[in-house]
Amino acid sequence: MNHPVEKPIGVAVLGMGNVGAEVVRILTEDADDLQARVGAPVVLRGVAVRDTSKPRDVDASLLTDDPQSLIDRDDVDVVVELIGGIEPPRTLILSALESGKSVVTANKALMAAHAGELSDAAARNRVDLYFEAAVAGAIPVIRPLTQSLAGDSVNRVAGIVNGTTNFILSEMAETGADYSDVLAEAGRLGYAEADPTADVEGYDAAAKAAILASIAFHSRVTADDVYREGITKITPEDLDAARKFDCTVKLLAICERFDDGGVEKISARVYPALIPLEHPLASVNGAYNAVVVESENAGRLMFYGAGAGGAPTAAAVMGDLVMAARNRVFSGRGPLESTYADLPVAPIDDVPTRYYIAMQVQDRPGVLQQLAGEFARHGVSISAMRQEGAGDDAKLIVVTHRASDRAQSETVAALESLDSVVKVSSVLRLEGTDD
Amino acid sequence: MNHPVEKPIGVAVLGMGNVGAEVVRILTEDADDLQARVGAPVVLRGVAVRDTSKPRDVDASLLTDDPQSLIDRDDVDVVVELIGGIEPPRTLILSALESGKSVVTANKALMAAHAGELSDAAARNRVDLYFEAAVAGAIPVIRPLTQSLAGDSVNRVAGIVNGTTNFILSEMAETGADYSDVLAEAGRLGYAEADPTADVEGYDAAAKAAILASIAFHSRVTADDVYREGITKITPEDLDAARKFDCTVKLLAICERFDDGGVEKISARVYPALIPLEHPLASVNGAYNAVVVESENAGRLMFYGAGAGGAPTAAAVMGDLVMAARNRVFSGRGPLESTYADLPVAPIDDVPTRYYIAMQVQDRPGVLQQLAGEFARHGVSISAMRQEGAGDDAKLIVVTHRASDRAQSETVAALESLDSVVKVSSVLRLEGTDD
Repeated sequence: MNHPVEKPIGVAVLGMGNVGAEVVRILTEDADDLQARVGAPVVLRGVAVRDTSKPRDVDASLLTDDPQSLIDRDDVDVVVELIGGIEPPRTLILSALESGKSVVTANKALMAAHAGELSDAAARNRVDLYFEAAVAGAIPVIRPLTQSLAGDSVNRVAGIVNGTTNFILSEMAETGADYSDVLAEAGRLGYAEADPTADVEGYDAAAKAAILASIAFHSRVTADDVYREGITKITPEDLDAARKFDCTVKLLAICERFDDGGVEKISARVYPALIPLEHPLASVNGAYNAVVVESENAGRLMFYGAGAGGAPTAAAVMGDLVMAARNRVFSGRGPLESTYADLPVAPIDDVPTRYYIAMQVQDRPGVLQQLAGEFARHGVSISAMRQEGAGDDAKLIVVTHRASDRAQSETVAALESLDSVVKVSSVLRLEGTDD
Repeated sequence: MNHPVEKPIGVAVLGMGNVGAEVVRILTEDADDLQARVGAPVVLRGVAVRDTSKPRDVDASLLTDDPQSLIDRDDVDVVVELIGGIEPPRTLILSALESGKSVVTANKALMAAHAGELSDAAARNRVDLYFEAAVAGAIPVIRPLTQSLAGDSVNRVAGIVNGTTNFILSEMAETGADYSDVLAEAGRLGYAEADPTADVEGYDAAAKAAILASIAFHSRVTADDVYREGITKITPEDLDAARKFDCTVKLLAICERFDDGGVEKISARVYPALIPLEHPLASVNGAYNAVVVESENAGRLMFYGAGAGGAPTAAAVMGDLVMAARNRVFSGRGPLESTYADLPVAPIDDVPTRYYIAMQVQDRPGVLQQLAGEFARHGVSISAMRQEGAGDDAKLIVVTHRASDRAQSETVAALESLDSVVKVSSVLRLEGTDD
């Protein structure tokens, strides 16, 4: 080692679930490497857990059920928050920042709701607030966006950022099984939680979309700004139909900058969408995550890897922890929150989208003409149309060109009220195309 | 803007080729965004070029043919070196660092040869030396490895890091055309330089492998440490044979940590290799680059994007420039070179590899037995064997299991001396398999 041994950097870990346990393990097993990389010993001062009597892979004397006292210790420099949820993490992190400690968190819900307040506290106290693990697990996304692309202009971020739903959609596409059967299988395999709502309804992805949009567009975007639809209504028929259009269905988090009649706006949204099979996200299967970034000068970049799991998420936490610890040794600081662009977030109605619409229609002369007229009346032009079956089973699938989502959804509502349309059986958006 | 306007950060650009011209354009066009992100105006002080009389897209008063005087100006804080080659860049960068200026460079040859000297100068003078653009153009690779994975242990980095050779191999695989024909086409399309030696002989990729190995393994690795083979001997027959083994051929830069009889060693090497079609690098085609990182906790990550070109490379330079400028405003510093692990670089002979060997053999009884005996005698076991043709055209293809590269190459030499082997027509390594 080239450096003289510096005063140790003390670490407090809050929460010892899957990720916390891995962080504690790495802090212990890799202590020598961490010391060499930080320039000072990195010492675990304590782990706050709810139940200190539960046996865990850590020296029992390090356990405490009082996170605030642990944070307050003079020998704690960096606090790693892995509890999850809004409270108590928000209060604990604010308290750590206000007392001059740097914070590393994997808490997407908290960052998506309170990034502004927390970042302000970090800036005021001249400490770091890092959250790489909050989006896409092990995959470096936050740091590339905030640092590597700091001199570029991001136009779009589109990602598969939820492993549970990607596993379910991949399985449905591969096996033709029903949503509910695959969800049950995902639960058995440990890919879905007992209450899968946050994943399958898109809340988890929406939190990540808010974080990504904020940093990509230098604006403050919260989870409430994100339009959100889940995957619970996706049927094997949808996946089947998608394939006929050389597409597959993925739950996407999309952050986009667009021109709305001369005004620069951004959109952040989460929904299951058709994407062309040749799109790089189409071949991201199972519990994997991937994020595609399109920027002015760098062009299209893709980042791929494990989006969840104890060790991968801990790897992201540890990268942040080493950087925060180094900054304390060298009196440096990472990038601050950047919200100068302050772009308005457009409601979904104003965002240009493309639709895929599957309908049961009456099989009689003039129906196609009537339907086509309805699209035209709303200013939505048709890109592709396919008719299947005949008689009572006659099914019509329409893919539209880009138009405002309002025009698209109003077209669907109008179609539903037509006599010749028995039922609109499925409506999905189409993403990842140039036109 | 939240910050009071700080003293401007002065930038000197050395070299105005493709990348330099883009950097100058972005500095001008995006001045407002850059100021907001840095916290101070970022001002171009001058551009050093060889011929100041050549018309260029920049205010002529900014041009100079005296780079040293530009660097020495009191109002220059960050020097962006885009000249390329070892000298004069080495001397210019050292001079900039010694006079307390931060440096951003895209110079892979220089970083692969003199990273130690340059990093020491940066550390001594407490300034930044950034070089994201030196590896894989726009794709963030250096920053993820040095920061995001700072708390993890990298086992392997394997990348397609040269667009010219990847274009050539992709075209050969797709069209069945000869190497020389595709090289000529690449030249016409602007994907290959008039003298393509640095690309097709693997020197460019070897420089990048040295840089990647250094930062991945916290050790000092130079281009001289990198074993290197080019793609000039690859034939359409090789690509054809690869396909029969469900593989394709890619020029890979491989950095690996391995256990050599109880001693931890690293290997850095560049050669065309067979990789299985299902490997994520197999579908990286054309002039694109991609880097796969395998680490202990994060697992397998992939980074994909444009590996060359003016604007993409400039995007990487600009990211570095914004970070270096921010550090000057906030008195911070990026990570230093980390070489504490100081792992020995093994010669190729000691590295475990797998071979693909194509031979013309005599078509008579006992030949297979004789050949198999030769493999066994060298301790190399056979994974797959395929015989094609008969009589004078009898061809045998063998794929081996992992063994030291010495054992593999000695086996090939022994095969060549056998009467029953008419000719060993092709030898390639196989990468990207687990066994």
